[in-house]
Amino acid sequence: MLHPLLLGAAVQKHVEFKGFTRIRRVAPIAIDTHGGRAKALQRLIRLDFPVPATVAVSFDSVHRIASGELPDVAGLLETFDTPLVSVRPSSQDPDWGGPGAILNIGMNDARHAELTQSHGEEAANAIYLRFVQSYAINVARLDPDMFEMGKGLDNAALKSALDAYEYETDEYFPQDPAAQLLEVLRSMARAWEGTSARLLREARGAPADAGLGLVVQQMVLGVGPGESGSGVIQFADSTTGKSGITGRYLGQSQGRDALRATNGAIYLTNDPRGPSLEGQLPEVFEKLKSIGDTCRTKLREEMQLEFTVENGALHILDATRVTRSARAAVRIAVALANDGIIEKNEAILRIEPRSLSDLLHRHVDPRGKRDVILTGIAASPGAAVGRVVYSASDAQAGAARGEPSILVRRETTPEDIRGMHAAVGVLTERGGVTSHAAVIARGLGLPCVVGASDMRLNHKNKTLVTPDGRTIREGDILTIDGSTGQVLAGAADMLDPALDDAFQTLMGWADAVRDIGVRANADTPAEAQVARNFAAQGIGLCRTEHMFFDEDRLTVMREMIFTDDPKDRAAALDRLLPMQRADFTELFRIMQGQPVCIRLFDPPLHEFLPSDREGMRDLAEALAVPLSDVTRRVESLSEFNPMLGMRGVRLGITVPEIYDMQARAIFEATIEASKQGDPVVPEIMIPLVSARREVEIVKARVDAVAAAVRTERGVDFDYRLGVMVETPRAALRAFDISQHSDFLSFGTNDLTQMTYGLSRDDAGRFMSSYVSQGVFSEDPFHILDAEGVGELLTIGADRARKARPAISISLCGEHGGNPESIAFCRTAGFDYVSCSPYRVPVARLAAAHLALKQPVS
Amino acid sequence: MLHPLLLGAAVQKHVEFKGFTRIRRVAPIAIDTHGGRAKALQRLIRLDFPVPATVAVSFDSVHRIASGELPDVAGLLETFDTPLVSVRPSSQDPDWGGPGAILNIGMNDARHAELTQSHGEEAANAIYLRFVQSYAINVARLDPDMFEMGKGLDNAALKSALDAYEYETDEYFPQDPAAQLLEVLRSMARAWEGTSARLLREARGAPADAGLGLVVQQMVLGVGPGESGSGVIQFADSTTGKSGITGRYLGQSQGRDALRATNGAIYLTNDPRGPSLEGQLPEVFEKLKSIGDTCRTKLREEMQLEFTVENGALHILDATRVTRSARAAVRIAVALANDGIIEKNEAILRIEPRSLSDLLHRHVDPRGKRDVILTGIAASPGAAVGRVVYSASDAQAGAARGEPSILVRRETTPEDIRGMHAAVGVLTERGGVTSHAAVIARGLGLPCVVGASDMRLNHKNKTLVTPDGRTIREGDILTIDGSTGQVLAGAADMLDPALDDAFQTLMGWADAVRDIGVRANADTPAEAQVARNFAAQGIGLCRTEHMFFDEDRLTVMREMIFTDDPKDRAAALDRLLPMQRADFTELFRIMQGQPVCIRLFDPPLHEFLPSDREGMRDLAEALAVPLSDVTRRVESLSEFNPMLGMRGVRLGITVPEIYDMQARAIFEATIEASKQGDPVVPEIMIPLVSARREVEIVKARVDAVAAAVRTERGVDFDYRLGVMVETPRAALRAFDISQHSDFLSFGTNDLTQMTYGLSRDDAGRFMSSYVSQGVFSEDPFHILDAEGVGELLTIGADRARKARPAISISLCGEHGGNPESIAFCRTAGFDYVSCSPYRVPVARLAAAHLALKQPVS
Repeated sequence: MLHPLLLGAAVQKHVEFKGFTRIRRVAPIAIDTHGGRAKALQRLIRLDFPVPATVAVSFDSVHRIASGELPDVAGLLETFDTPLVSVRPSSQDPDWGGPGAILNIGMNDARHAELTQSHGEEAANAIYLRFVQSYAINVARLDPDMFEMGKGLDNAALKSALDAYEYETDEYFPQDPAAQLLEVLRSMARAWEGTSARLLREARGAPADAGLGLVVQQMVLGVGPGESGSGVIQFADSTTGKSGITGRYLGQSQGRDALRATNGAIYLTNDPRGPSLEGQLPEVFEKLKSIGDTCRTKLREEMQLEFTVENGALHILDATRVTRSARAAVRIAVALANDGIIEKNEAILRIEPRSLSDLLHRHVDPRGKRDVILTGIAASPGAAVGRVVYSASDAQAGAARGEPSILVRRETTPEDIRGMHAAVGVLTERGGVTSHAAVIARGLGLPCVVGASDMRLNHKNKTLVTPDGRTIREGDILTIDGSTGQVLAGAADMLDPALDDAFQTLMGWADAVRDIGVRANADTPAEAQVARNFAAQGIGLCRTEHMFFDEDRLTVMREMIFTDDPKDRAAALDRLLPMQRADFTELFRIMQGQPVCIRLFDPPLHEFLPSDREGMRDLAEALAVPLSDVTRRVESLSEFNPMLGMRGVRLGITVPEIYDMQARAIFEATIEASKQGDPVVPEIMIPLVSARREVEIVKARVDAVAAAVRTERGVDFDYRLGVMVETPRAALRAFDISQHSDFLSFGTNDLTQMTYGLSRDDAGRFMSSYVSQGVFSEDPFHILDAEGVGELLTIGADRARKARPAISISLCGEHGGNPESIAFCRTAGFDYVSCSPYRVPVARLAAAHLALKQPVS
Repeated sequence: MLHPLLLGAAVQKHVEFKGFTRIRRVAPIAIDTHGGRAKALQRLIRLDFPVPATVAVSFDSVHRIASGELPDVAGLLETFDTPLVSVRPSSQDPDWGGPGAILNIGMNDARHAELTQSHGEEAANAIYLRFVQSYAINVARLDPDMFEMGKGLDNAALKSALDAYEYETDEYFPQDPAAQLLEVLRSMARAWEGTSARLLREARGAPADAGLGLVVQQMVLGVGPGESGSGVIQFADSTTGKSGITGRYLGQSQGRDALRATNGAIYLTNDPRGPSLEGQLPEVFEKLKSIGDTCRTKLREEMQLEFTVENGALHILDATRVTRSARAAVRIAVALANDGIIEKNEAILRIEPRSLSDLLHRHVDPRGKRDVILTGIAASPGAAVGRVVYSASDAQAGAARGEPSILVRRETTPEDIRGMHAAVGVLTERGGVTSHAAVIARGLGLPCVVGASDMRLNHKNKTLVTPDGRTIREGDILTIDGSTGQVLAGAADMLDPALDDAFQTLMGWADAVRDIGVRANADTPAEAQVARNFAAQGIGLCRTEHMFFDEDRLTVMREMIFTDDPKDRAAALDRLLPMQRADFTELFRIMQGQPVCIRLFDPPLHEFLPSDREGMRDLAEALAVPLSDVTRRVESLSEFNPMLGMRGVRLGITVPEIYDMQARAIFEATIEASKQGDPVVPEIMIPLVSARREVEIVKARVDAVAAAVRTERGVDFDYRLGVMVETPRAALRAFDISQHSDFLSFGTNDLTQMTYGLSRDDAGRFMSSYVSQGVFSEDPFHILDAEGVGELLTIGADRARKARPAISISLCGEHGGNPESIAFCRTAGFDYVSCSPYRVPVARLAAAHLALKQPVS
C-alpha cells in the first residue's frame, strides 16, 4: 500500500470532487443511485427517528473513488459535529453483499487522549483499538492474526496494536482523519470492483454493472459514561415469522457486538432467565417498541433495528429488512396484508414461488450439524431419516415392522415402486432429475437423491462405500436431504413442514387472481389426496401402468403377455377389469367430480417381465411353461431403445384388448362414482401418438366400448378423449390430430427427449458438464427449452386451435411446476398446467405472480 | 344367374342404348375412354394392317352394362359380316388386368352345321366346343372341371359339353347370338366391378374409378380349310431387350394357343431345331416382318403381334407392348432413341428409376425353380449363393478359404462388419429395412434378408430350423434373394448384372438433364469405388466408426476408453492417427478431387466394448486389469436408450481428443492427397447436434487443429465444416446453427426416429401391420414422411438460408435414393442428395425424370 503520508500529500495535489449528499427528509436519495441502506436511513429520518447525521456516497462517486479520483474528504468531515464517523456499504440489494462496516474512523492519538478524559481510559482504548484493528486488517490488508482482539482493553493492548501496525508498515498509524477516511472509502470501493466479489454477486443475480453506495455516519458511542451500549431488535421471528420481540443489548459495546457476545448481553423483554432492557431501561425499551411499530406501518415491512444508547440517549443507527425463512416470509406477508399495511396482491408478490417447496416438506434443521458422506443430484425436496435397505422388498419388510427405510438402488425400475411407497427416502447411484426414481419420488413427495455416482454400491453384499472410505451396511441410519442432494451420516435434526393458516390464506389469495389452471400429475389415491389437499383443479395426468405391478395383477399381466390368442388375452384382462375399475372409482371419489385425465397404458410390455435368470425360472414355474419359452419371450420383447419402441398407442393398436379393458374400467367407474356425487366426466388420453390415424383407431374402439357399457348398464355418461403430444410429429401434425381430440396435453418429458434426441436416463452422465460449459444454458429436462421444444408447443397449440377452436390445451410434463414453463404456457394461452402434487402450490403462486405482473387484456 | 331366355325377353322390354363405336381411322377412340387395346387397334388400322372389323365399347358403356342397362346388341351384330365375334378387355393400362378374352361368340347349333359343311367336322367342333367351354365357365360360372378340354374334337365331345351345360342349368345352351353376346359383355363388365378385381388393380396403381373398355372383333378362323392357324410374334427379346424375332405359330389353332401348345407349334424364323413359319409360309412371314418394322417406327415401341392365318390370308388381331425385364427395357429404350424413333428424353422417361436396381445386382433367374424355406424382409437387393456360417469370424475364415459364405445372425452389430465384408449375403432373424444389417448390406451391395422371425436360430449349436421343420446346419448351401426377401434351399439359378453399354448411355443422357446433385454414402474404399463407378458426384456421408473395428485398432480404442486421463487418451489416439490418415488419403485418392464429407465419430463408446462374459475376460487379460474393472466400465457405459445417449457431438465435446485426432488425420490426408492430384477440400460434418454452442465448441477445436497442421507442414489447405441435422431441435434452430456452418446435411434416418419417437431397430415388430392397417400410409424409414419429417427439412433449410444464403443443403439419410425424397429435396432447393452407392443410378435417373416432368423456371 501507499504510505499514508504520501497519500495525504497526494490529496493535496489533485482537484477534489464533491460526491457526498447529506441525508435529509428531502435529499435526492434513491435505491438505484445510493443503495438500499441510504434510502432506508432517509426513511428513518423522515419518520423523525433519532438517527445520527449521515452522508450518502452515490454509486457513481464510489466508482470514481475506485478509479483513483479524489473526493473532498476534508469538506465532508467538516459537516459532522466531531470527526469520528462510521462507513457502511449500501448496495442496491442487500443480498448482493458488500464490504463490512468500519467504525470509529477519525480516532488518533489526540482524540484518544481527549476521550480518556471524557469517557475513561477503558472506553477510549476500546474505541481506538477497534479502529486500529479494522483499519489494519481491512484497509492496510495486514495479517489478521497479528491484530487478534486480546482480552484486555488496557493501554498495553492498544500500544501493542499500534506497534504491530508500525512494525508491519514502517509507518506510525495514520493520524489525519481525512486521510483515514479517504483510505477507508478507497479500499471499500476497490473491494467491490474486485473479480471475486463481482462473481459472487452475479451468482446471486446482480447485473454486471451493479454499483456500490456507502453511508458515512456520525459515530454515537456505546461506550463511555452513564448508561451506554448497543443492541439489535426485531419484532417478528426470523424462523417462524410469528410476531414477537427478539434481539440483545450489551452495555459498553458498539455495532452488533451484542449478538456476538458470549456473556454480558441481556434480553430485551422481561425474561425469567436474566436481566432485560425492558427491566433496566424501560423508557428506552418503550421508545424502541414505538419506533418498531411505526417502522412496520410506515415502511410496510418487518425491520431489524440497530440502536445505540449513548449516555442514556437512544440512537437508531440502521434498519434492515428482517431476514426470514420461507415460512416466516409467508406469515409476515399475510400478517402485513391482514393488518391492512400492504395489499393482498403485494403479499402474493412478496413470496418467491420456488421458496414454497421448502414449506411443504420436512427439512434438515440448518442449525444442526451436517456429516455429509455423499453428494448427488437433489431430485425430490425434503429430508428423511431411516435405516438403509438395498431392495424394494426389504423396504416393504421395514414398513411392515414400522421402521422407516432409506431405499438405496443403482437405479429404480417400475418393479421398485411398491418399495418406494414403503420407504421414507430414496438414494440412487445413477440417473438425473427426470430419472424414474426422481419422477416417482416427487410424485410421492419422497425425499430423493439420485446420481450419487461417487459411491461404490455392492448389492450382493448389501453395502455401499463412500468416497472417503466409510462402509454403510444394511440397517445403518442415514439422512437423505433431497433439497440439497446431500446424504448425511446418522439422524440429522429436522424441521417439520408448515402448511399453516398463513400458507392457506396466501394460496387462497393467489387462486383468486391467477388466470391459468393448475392440475396435478397423480397416479395413486395417496397422490390424488395430496393433489386435493393442495387444491389442484383436477388430475392432469394419471399414469395407469403402476397399477399393474401389484403381485396378483403382475401375474395376470404376464399370463396376458404369454398368450398369442386375442381371446386368451381378453380373458386375462377380464380378471384385471374389476381391479382397474376399483382404482378409478377411488380416484374419482377423492377428486370429488373434478376432472381426472387418465393416460392409457403406456410402457413396453417387457417392463412386466423379469430380467434376471431367477425371475425367469420363477415365472416359468408359475406359468407351467418351459424356461426356454420364457427366455425366448423375454428376448423377443427386449428392445434396443425402449423409449422409442413398442409402447403407448403402438401397443394400443397392436394389442387392442388392453385399451378395451381400460376404457371399460373407466366407464364403469364413471357410472359408479357418479352415483355417489357429481357426475364424473373422465378424460381419456392416448400416449405417444404420431399420426392421426392412430387416434381414429383408438377412438373407434373406445367409443364402441362406451356404447356397449351404456347399453349394458342403461346409464348415460359423458367422457372426453384426447392426445398426449410427446413426439415432435404429433406437434407438427396437431391440425390433423385435433380433428378427433377434445384436448391435447403436451408431455414435455418425452417431447424434450425426442426434440433433443436425448434420453433423460442417459443424459445424467454429461448434463452437468454440458450446462457448466454453457453448451446448454439450462438442463432442458429441468427448465423447458423455450426455443426448441417451446416452438413445438406453440406450433402444436396454434394448429390444434385452427382445427378446433374450443380444444383444451395443457402441459403435463415434469416442467408443469416451473414458473418459467407456466409463464410460457400462459402466454401461449394454455388452459392449464399439470405438475407433481407437491409442486401444485408453487405453480398456483407462480401463476398468480404472472397474472399480477403481466395482466392479459 | 338369370335364365338366358328370360334375359332375351328382358332385352325386348327395355329401351336399348347404343354404346358401340366401330374402330376406323378417324373414329373417336382414346385410351382414357376406350382403353389401350382399342387405341392400339385403331393405330394398326391407320397403318393399313389387315385387322378384322372391330367395335370398341367405351368405359362408360361397360359401366352402364354392369349397372343393368341394355345395349343394342342386335344392332351391333348387324354391323359384322357374320355373327361370329370375340370380346377382349381394353383397360387404360394393361397392368391393371381385366377379364380374359372370349372367342367364337355367336356359335350355335345352326352355325355349327354350316361350319361342318364349309370347314369340316373337326374345325366346327373345335370352334363350338371352345365357345361352350368359355361361356359355361366364365359367363354361367359353372364348375370348370366339368368342361375340361378333352383330347378329342369329335361330335361326342361336343355333345358331352352341351349335355353338361344343360344338366347344370336345366336349359339348353343359348342359341341366340345377341343373347350370348349380351351375357358375355355383362359378365365381363360385372367381373371388372367386383371387389377382388378392384383391390387387385388398385394394388397395381389403378385409381378407384378406373374404367374397363371392351373390343368386339369379327372372328377370323385359324381352323378350317387351306393353311389356317394362329401365332404370336415379337421383334425384341423380353429378357435381354436384344433385337431378334421370337414367337410361335400353330396350324389349326385360335388365339394364343401356339404359346401354350406342348407340341405342333413351330418356330417363326428358320431354325435348325425344326420347321418354321419362314420356311412353310414365307410370304406370310415376310408380311409379318414388314408389319413389325412399321409398328416399331410408327408406334414408337416394340410390339407383340397376335396374328391369324385364315385359309392362307394373314390377319392381325391384336398388338400389345412387349413385356420386358428391366434390362430389356433399358436396351429397347436406348435402341429406339439411337434409331431416331423417340427422343432421348423420352427414353429416359420410359425407364422407371426403381427398376434399375434390378440391373445392378445378380438375381435369381425367374425361370428356375424356387425352394423357399424362409421369408423375411427384402433389405438389400440382389441374390447370392453360399455356405451358411453363424459368426462373423467363420465368414472371414470362409473368405480366406475362397468359399462364399451366407452370414446368419440374430441381428448384426458393428463387430460383425468385417464378417459382412467377407460374406456374400446376410440373413438376420430381427430388424427392419433400416436395421444395422440392412443399412450396411445396402452400402456393400450385399444381398440381405432381415427380420426372418419365423426361423428358430440356435447360435450355440450352429443351426436354424425353418417353419416347416427343416434344420439348416453350418456349411449347408442357401440362396439369399434380397430383392424378394426369400431364402431358398440350395443353389438357385442366377442372372448376372447388366451394366452394359445401353445402361451407361441412358445414365449419361439422364445426367445431362438433371438439376440436383447425387452423392453416395460410402465408408470404405470398396464403397467409394462403387460410388465412383456409378458416377456419384462425391461422398455425401462417410461414417468413420467402422474404421475402428479392425482388430488392432479396436485394441487401441479400448485402451482409450479405459483411461480417465486426457493425456493417455490422446496418446492412444495418436496410435490411431496414421491409420485414420491412411483411410482418408485412400478415399480422397479414389474420389479424385470430388468432395468427401466425413462425419466425425458418432457411436456410443460401449459399442467398442465386449458385451459377453468371455469377451470381457479376454479384454481384462489384454489390458492387464482386473475383470471387475472391465465389467464395471462396461456397465457404467451401458445405456437405456443408446440412440438417445452419449454419442455424436456429445462425445466430441466430452472426450474432445477423438475429434482432434480425426481432424488432424483429415487435414494431413488432405495435404497428402492434394500432392497427387487436384487440391482436396474435405468436408467435416458434426453429428447429432442440437444446439449452436455445440458447433462453436467443435469448430474452435477443429480450426485450432487446422492451424497447427498448417504451421507444422507449412502447407495451406481449405476445408468446410458443417452439421448433420438429425434432431428435430437442430432443424428448428437451423438459423442459429448455420452461423458457424458451411453446410447442413439432413440425416433423415435419425431425424425420422426422433420425429416419430420410433426406433428403427424396434419398429420392425409392428411396422408391417401398421402400414397394412393404414396407420402409417408408408414405412417412414422407407419413404420420407413429407408431412412431418419433411416439414422439419423445409423449416431447417429455410432458416439456414436466412442466416447464410450460400449455405449448402443436402440429405444423406437412407431416403436419399428414393425418387419421392429426391422430388421433395429438389422442390425445397437442396443442393444434393446422398444415398447408398448402389442407389446412385436410381437417384440419377429419378432426378432426370423430375427435371423433365417439372422443369424449374
